[in-house]
This record gives sequence, C-alpha cells and structure tokens, in this order.
Amino acid sequence: MAAKDKNDLYAVVMAGGKGTRFWPLSRETFPKQFLRLTGDNTLLQNTINRLNGEVPPENFLIITTRHQGDLVRWQTGDALPAGCTVMEPQGRNTAPAIALAAFKIRKRNKNALMLVLPSDHHISDTGAFKTAVKKAGAAAREGNLVTFGVVPSRPETGYGYIKAGKSIGKGIYKVERFVEKPGRKEAQSFLKEGSFFWNSGIFLFRVRDILAEMKKYMPELYNAFSKIEKSLDAEKEEEALKSVYASIEGESIDYGIMERSKRVAVVKAGFGWSDIGSWSALDEVMERDGAGNVVTGNAVSVDAENSIIFSSGRLVASIGVKDMVVVDTSDATLICPKDRVQEVKQLVERLKEEGKNEYLLPRLEERPWGYFSILEKGPHYQIKHICLKPKARLSLQMHNHRSEHWIVVSGTALVQRGEETFHVHKNESTYIPPTVKHRLENPGLIPLKIIEIQSGEFLGEEDIIRFEDAYGRKSD
Amino acid sequence: MAAKDKNDLYAVVMAGGKGTRFWPLSRETFPKQFLRLTGDNTLLQNTINRLNGEVPPENFLIITTRHQGDLVRWQTGDALPAGCTVMEPQGRNTAPAIALAAFKIRKRNKNALMLVLPSDHHISDTGAFKTAVKKAGAAAREGNLVTFGVVPSRPETGYGYIKAGKSIGKGIYKVERFVEKPGRKEAQSFLKEGSFFWNSGIFLFRVRDILAEMKKYMPELYNAFSKIEKSLDAEKEEEALKSVYASIEGESIDYGIMERSKRVAVVKAGFGWSDIGSWSALDEVMERDGAGNVVTGNAVSVDAENSIIFSSGRLVASIGVKDMVVVDTSDATLICPKDRVQEVKQLVERLKEEGKNEYLLPRLEERPWGYFSILEKGPHYQIKHICLKPKARLSLQMHNHRSEHWIVVSGTALVQRGEETFHVHKNESTYIPPTVKHRLENPGLIPLKIIEIQSGEFLGEEDIIRFEDAYGRKSD
Repeated sequence: MAAKDKNDLYAVVMAGGKGTRFWPLSRETFPKQFLRLTGDNTLLQNTINRLNGEVPPENFLIITTRHQGDLVRWQTGDALPAGCTVMEPQGRNTAPAIALAAFKIRKRNKNALMLVLPSDHHISDTGAFKTAVKKAGAAAREGNLVTFGVVPSRPETGYGYIKAGKSIGKGIYKVERFVEKPGRKEAQSFLKEGSFFWNSGIFLFRVRDILAEMKKYMPELYNAFSKIEKSLDAEKEEEALKSVYASIEGESIDYGIMERSKRVAVVKAGFGWSDIGSWSALDEVMERDGAGNVVTGNAVSVDAENSIIFSSGRLVASIGVKDMVVVDTSDATLICPKDRVQEVKQLVERLKEEGKNEYLLPRLEERPWGYFSILEKGPHYQIKHICLKPKARLSLQMHNHRSEHWIVVSGTALVQRGEETFHVHKNESTYIPPTVKHRLENPGLIPLKIIEIQSGEFLGEEDIIRFEDAYGRKSD
Repeated sequence: MAAKDKNDLYAVVMAGGKGTRFWPLSRETFPKQFLRLTGDNTLLQNTINRLNGEVPPENFLIITTRHQGDLVRWQTGDALPAGCTVMEPQGRNTAPAIALAAFKIRKRNKNALMLVLPSDHHISDTGAFKTAVKKAGAAAREGNLVTFGVVPSRPETGYGYIKAGKSIGKGIYKVERFVEKPGRKEAQSFLKEGSFFWNSGIFLFRVRDILAEMKKYMPELYNAFSKIEKSLDAEKEEEALKSVYASIEGESIDYGIMERSKRVAVVKAGFGWSDIGSWSALDEVMERDGAGNVVTGNAVSVDAENSIIFSSGRLVASIGVKDMVVVDTSDATLICPKDRVQEVKQLVERLKEEGKNEYLLPRLEERPWGYFSILEKGPHYQIKHICLKPKARLSLQMHNHRSEHWIVVSGTALVQRGEETFHVHKNESTYIPPTVKHRLENPGLIPLKIIEIQSGEFLGEEDIIRFEDAYGRKSD
C-alpha cells in the first residue's frame, strides 16, 4: 500500500462492549477488552498495535461509551492521541457506532476506507492479518463492503456464518447470504460443505459506500446523523450526539446493512482468529502444556488435565483437576467446569441480586495517574496500594469523614497538606486529618508506591471533594 | 463418679501431632489440632472442654513438643494452668509420651486413672462420651487397660480394628486381638461379622497398670524413665528428658503394649466419633445441605453437589462443582477431588521441594498476647493486621533495620516510644523509627486492632531485640 493509501485507511475500533464473561478478572465496569488475558498488553492495546505501520495513529477512532472513555484513554494514551477516543452517549449496538465513525471520517477525508474491528478479539498471525487487510482494501476500492470470513475449524454454534458465492479474486468472494447462529446439525453441514465462513465481525469498506448503503437500508439512522453532521468534531458534538442517541434505536451493522446489501464480499481470513468468548476459549489462544492445560501465574498442579488455571498472585494448588476453569483474583475465586463457563454470566447476576457489589467493581482500579487496588477492607478502615506514574499528581482534594495515612514504600512523594508542602521519602509516612486540603504528587522518575490507610466512619469514593485536577475530573 | 474419684482421673491429651493434611488451612508448624475446623473453638480446645466437670483443670497433661509448646499454652491458657503443658524434646510416637505422663502422674497420685486422648478428633455426643468414660473407669479400676472401640459404619481401610471377645459387662469386652489397617475385603467382612470395632486411639487405665505392663513389654522404655523419675516436675526435668529422648526409640502404645498385654478390654463407644483424617472427613462432622455440601464462609455455589467449600474470607464462587474440596485462604487456594485428598500431603512436599516455604508457615500467627496476620509483603515493606487481647502487652523491643507505622483501627493503644508514653486512639497513628525502644500495649477492655506497616531493608522476625517480655520470651 502506498503512503497516500495508508493515510486513507482509518481504523474504527469498537470498544464499548460490556460483559462479565471473564469474571472475576473482568468486572461489570471493567470488561474484557481492558484485560491482559494473553500477555502483557490488553486486548484493546493488541488491537491497536496490530495495525502498527498500516494505520497512522491519528486515523484511529476508538468508539466507546462515556462510562468507559477514561479507561480507553488511559490504555491507549501511549499509542494514540487523546482525540482518538470517541464516546457515544450510550451503547446502541454496532450500526450507530459505525454511522458516527463514518460521518466523522467523511468530514476529514471523502476517499477514506474504514476498517471496523472489535476491540476484544485475538489474532495470532499479524502478518496474515495485514495481508488480508490489503486484499480487502483492494476489493473495497472497487465498491465492495468487505467482511472477513474465518475458515471454520469446528461446528461452532455460537457464531454467525457467511456463505461465500462466486469468486471475485484469489480468496475473495461475493457473499451469497449470512446465517445467524446455526444449530449443531446445520453447523456440521456448513463445515462439510466448505463454502461457509465464520463472521469475524471485522469489516472494511469505503466511507462513501457504507454511507450510501446506510441511506438506502437504514434511512432513519442516516438522516439522524446527517442533521448533526456540522456539530461533529465541533463544540456542540456532545449535545448533538445526546439528542441523536435518544432518538435512534440499537441495531447491528450485520442486520441493518450487511445482510441486505448487494455489494457485500468476503475475504478468506487465515490469521488465527478467536473472539475469546469465554474462559474456556483461552485454550485456542494460549499455549497448552503436554496435558492440555493453560496455566498462568502462581500455580502448582498435580495431574491437571485439559484445564485452565489463572492465578493473579496467590498460590493455586490443585490435584486431579480435569476439564475445569479455576480463576483466582485478590477478592474472588471462580471454579467451574469448562463446559459450563457460559453460566458465569448468570453467576454474576446472582451476585448482583445478593448485593455482593464489591465483586462487580474492578479489582485493580486504573486511573489517569496510575492505579490502585484495595488490599483490605475493615469496618472503619480500608487499606489501598497506590501507584503513581512518574510526574503524575492526584487532584487537590479533601475528605469530610476520613483521615488518611500514607507510607511511601518506593519512590518519593511530594505532599501538599493545608498550607505546607513537603517531600516524603521511602520508609517515611505522613498523616492527612479530615477536612484538610491535600494533594499527592510523584515528582520523581520512577513510580511512586504508597500504602494508604483510610480510617473513618465513611470511606466511599463519594467523600472526595476535588478542587483542582490535572486530568479535568470533577468526580471520581 | 464421686468427687474423690474425679480427683483421681487425669486426662493426658496427645497434642504433638504434625501434619499438613488440612493444608492450606493447616501448615507444617500449625497442624490440625490448632484449627477451628468445626466451629469457634479449636479441636484441642474442644478436647479439653469436653471433659469439663469430669477432670479438674490441674489434672490435665497436654503432651506436645517444644516446638508447639507456646501454641498449646496460648490455646489452653483460658481453661488450664500453664503447668499442664508438658513438652517432649521431640516427638517419639505415643508410647514414650504415655510413659512420661504416667511417671509424672504417679508422683502425684499412685491411685490415679489416666485417660489418654488424641487432641485432634471430633466427638459429637459429649454426654455419651462421658458415659463411656465412666464405664471404662470402672473397668480400669478392676485392672483392665481399656480401649474405646467405635462401632464401624463403613468398611474403612484407614483405621486399625479391635476384635471384641468375651463380654465382661454391658457394652464392655475383653479384647481378642488388634488388627492393623485391613484391606477392603477384610474390612467388609469385619463390618458383617459385628464384633469388630474401630480403634479410636482413646485409652483409660490405672497408672500402676500401664506402668506394670510397660515394665513387662517395654522394659527399656520403663527403665529409661525410672532413672530420671526424681527429675520429673523438678528443676532438671528438661535436661533429663533430653538425655532420655536421645536414647529411646519411637514406638506406639498400641504396638508396644496394647497388642501384647492380656489385660486389654474394649468399651463400645457410641458417641459419634471421627478422627477427621482429611478434608473429605468434614462430611462426617459438619452439617450438609440438601445437595450434600458442607459450605463454610463466603461462598456462592451453583449446582454444587457433595462438595466441601471452605472460604476464609474472600468470595469463592463455583458452578457445577461435584465431589470436590475447595479451600480458600488468604495466601493459597486448594482444589482437589474428594477421593484424592490423601494426596494433599504429597502436594505440600512438592511445595517444600520447590522452595515455596511461605505456604508452609502459618497464615494466622497466634501469640500469647493475641495474633497477627500478614496482609501483604512487598520488596521493602510488609503490612500486618495485629490484634492484642484486652490488657495484653508486647515486649519492650527495638529494631535495627526497620521503621514501623501503627494505625489504630479499633480500641485504644498505649505506646511507649523512647522516653515518651502516650495513647493512640482509633483512627490515629504513630511512627516508630529504627533503633528506638518501643512497646505496644492494650490498656482497654476490648481488643486492640492495629495495622502495622513495616518498612526497611530487612523485615525478618530476627530483627526483634527484646528487653522485657510479659510472657517470658527472649526470642519470637
């Protein structure tokens, strides 16, 4: 692809997904795309890094909801400009998200191609992925709406299928029809038949083509965005989007356009794809030992077989565990047979019903300045481990109901407490009484790690009165 | 039993057992008898409390090893005088322990009866137990060495059996023979035959009778103790025992005497006995839910069946767990099928080989003044949760390599720091720099709970220089 072409290519990453299928590692407010499931980077970060050299950073649009915008910014901040994060007022499925992205991109470049990608899938062969993108790009330039079809390896009933029709190039076909999740028998016949692909949810098309088809098949959606086109990337965008999203209905791009359009093609995708739909799918993407186990973290297993054992730090010791999933986090442990991982969703629902809300909140809270995790909660105290990135600073704040003790265990802190400002070094501590304005800052070049003990009658995040914030936050 | 008789009855509790069958709740240095497995009290405490009204406190001898002496004293301190804890230089099986107890008791009371009990068994019907003790006492007064035989409820291959012979009273028989752990078929035939009992390891005999039989069947053991009889309960006891224990060999009372003596009887014991030999044995002693599960602590189970789930605090969530044992503690989790719990021992061996020593140390460290647990360890810091009983005080001490921060989360602390003495109230904190003498005390009537953060280059228990200690300790 020539340099000019690359600048025409935009990546639209769908990062608004909720979900608790990876509970207890994921939480309601900390879904799968933000997890480091397969290595040091999160699935969202992998999705972006995979396009390194193909899509310039400023051509990314990460579509998410207001709720998760901060998380997206913090996780993509090293790779992408802040403006790449696009926040929908609320999730409305893929069609509105793609409409928003397409209208935004058209304002910048009428000839643009947009590559639409889920943020939480795994692709093992980046080279093959890039090749497929190039092939799809060529077909898209000829006016096709290109889908990426994965060659099925089993009669999966959890995916939609694409039936390939006439070939229009090497490994690229017109789409004959889409098939919703099939039954077992039907899936088996698809596998045998050979011309059916899994629908990966990845698409590539020219902005002008997807908008033309949207005008034809989803005119209400098209008109709603047409009306606010001027406000996009402008001052009134937030307000305009709110009114649009209040009026439109949720719909998938598959149902809304792809299944109806006559211009749909499919590229055969041989890049080792998995949507990592549940804990048991880690099998497909992680290395298994001789007995078929995927073991991550601090674990000792005797005679484990075909199991997934995921420890976040504490020792997980098992004997004779077979076809099981064991996930251990600092506040909750899950034990479940592999063939019942789909029920984790219901389990989380049950926790919610029983008021066990702490297990729905993130275990490791990421923040623009670093992260914290709660080590222990007592009746009137709470212990946190807090890590501030170099040069990061917390907001100037005050609490009505609690005092805070800070002990520096690594790095150096700069503390503002009332009218004083002073340094606290490793192994030293300081104390912030209630109602005293204070601020914690890392003036150094290495991470600042402190242990914070809060004590008082009320310890909720609500009791943070912010006066100044380097990250523009008023609350939380 | 008349008052006079009661003063003749001594209880000898065998509390020297090691073991890791209840790992991760038990640790190498914190074995089963010290665990709260069945309720608020430990198995050792239950063993003592069960004899309330039958054996006066001063007539207890808790036989343990030097290593576990402190633990025994702290766990029995509310019920028994400190002198009741008898420490062997090292464990040498039951015969030497019983010899030591018998010689000690004879010095106090030549007519004494001694009831020998394991410290880590469960008995569900205390009334029936007391009745059996009375019956056994009467038989012992006639010169019998009385064993307690449990009516078998299954063809257990893990226990020794006692074959009852001719009846010598209601529910009491001469013993025909002892049978070592039988094979499956043999055990089944015992169950059918009807005159075989499980050997509970509980015995009752006159001191003079067991010593007479010891002289006859284990003359070396008898002579070794005879030689140091004068030193017992005297100044040179410790030294004398060291020399005896260096010379004698380990042997069980069953093999050494009971299986050979002609004076052995068995009382039929119908008091709901279990030796709780492993995690799966909790089934026998704890209440099971409708699906056959024993669930303790913070657990949510979907479709659990015939399983044991033991949580020490964190949430354990499971789906479709069947015939499994799941034990969750603050630093380690065990997952194991019920029929493989015997292998926990090997698992712990493996941890040892792999150098994972932290999982062999106690999770909750009991001390004469209360307890502490380690919440988190970092490279140069460590966080402890410390609880001091009312009126308890730590030693006056100093550290060369660490500073300590104390935050009071419940109760009031009295702190001595260098030349100062001051109170620290709930939600307040104080700081102890390295090399400053200090002492922590609970002057109040409710437990004092503090969070301690130690920071420094060396955090081991070795860096405690003690100046005064209310519990007579020089180290640890």
